Amino acid sequence: MSFSPLVEQLMDALRVLPGVGPKTAQRMAMHLLERQREGGQRLAEVMREAVERVGYCQRCRTLTEEPLCGLCQSARRDDSLLCVVESPADMLAIEEAGGFQGRYFVLHGHLSPLDGVGPEDIGLDQLETLMEEGLIEEVVLATNPTVEGEATAHYIATQIQRHGARLSRLAYGVPMGGELEYVDGGTLSRAFSGRLPFDSE
Amino acid sequence: MSFSPLVEQLMDALRVLPGVGPKTAQRMAMHLLERQREGGQRLAEVMREAVERVGYCQRCRTLTEEPLCGLCQSARRDDSLLCVVESPADMLAIEEAGGFQGRYFVLHGHLSPLDGVGPEDIGLDQLETLMEEGLIEEVVLATNPTVEGEATAHYIATQIQRHGARLSRLAYGVPMGGELEYVDGGTLSRAFSGRLPFDSE
Repeated sequence: MSFSPLVEQLMDALRVLPGVGPKTAQRMAMHLLERQREGGQRLAEVMREAVERVGYCQRCRTLTEEPLCGLCQSARRDDSLLCVVESPADMLAIEEAGGFQGRYFVLHGHLSPLDGVGPEDIGLDQLETLMEEGLIEEVVLATNPTVEGEATAHYIATQIQRHGARLSRLAYGVPMGGELEYVDGGTLSRAFSGRLPFDSE
Repeated sequence: MSFSPLVEQLMDALRVLPGVGPKTAQRMAMHLLERQREGGQRLAEVMREAVERVGYCQRCRTLTEEPLCGLCQSARRDDSLLCVVESPADMLAIEEAGGFQGRYFVLHGHLSPLDGVGPEDIGLDQLETLMEEGLIEEVVLATNPTVEGEATAHYIATQIQRHGARLSRLAYGVPMGGELEYVDGGTLSRAFSGRLPFDSE
């Protein structure tokens, strides 16, 4: 025995969400049908609309339902600075940290030849066009500090260095507020080799 | 800065799901928009349909999009046995355990006067009608072994005992396969006071 076909379909469809297995899907379906019909209706509507209408910003490739995202539309940002990130979530994290006043470029992933993800899949042709405008003086490669992220950063560096812009990357080191005891070895040795003169800032 | 309005709306709407806070909602929205548009479209569609069409079975009150659920439609079940449960998920759990061949009645909750949940909100008027048909010989009160579940079972017992049907409840005791060390005190003392002669089965 199982639930009715439509309830089973709902449980099945919910599993498309990350981290949702059969038990969680059942709990979510029950919650929606028993207590949150209105919320479920709204969610279904917003989800349909978002999946249909949200696309990439024509300039920076972040997710937006407009041709240009809010940040690209803003006249207050520094056009000479470009920060390259892997995802819109990374972009938001940097914005929330504050301090960066330039513009962004979102890759939506990293190079992964084995999975068939090549330069054009992460928008590098579009990045090239952006560089050709000649406004950008510095590119901050803020890909993830993983093997794939670093490889992607290197690839981008070789591709765009002929435009004459300065290239930089985020500093590696120990995270603020942590305890050294719990910092992994790779990070610690990076922090050592990149040690700075005391009172450097 | 934040995501585009539609993406923010999606993240907001996702929080209607149980156990989904702002971070998980963001991760889910990104996953749907970056990698699972088709799955998201299907989910939106199924959710809209389920929230609209799934109602209660006219007889047992479980969730179904038909007037009568599959189990109530089946001619193979024992009409003289009725199991009262709090939720469709409980009903499914009992079905999956196997062994019970009777019919069900789903309360969709338990009595909770403080929250304004009275007898009619959990369908007790409908249960009364069912009892009046005179087919039911035994009612198994399988509400949750919580204070509210027990109180609800007692209320139902007093309401329906005048119909002359036998009343029973699930046995309390130590769960199979567990280690005594980790069984809570309440369960353990219940299991002691309800101890059975060895080889009783």
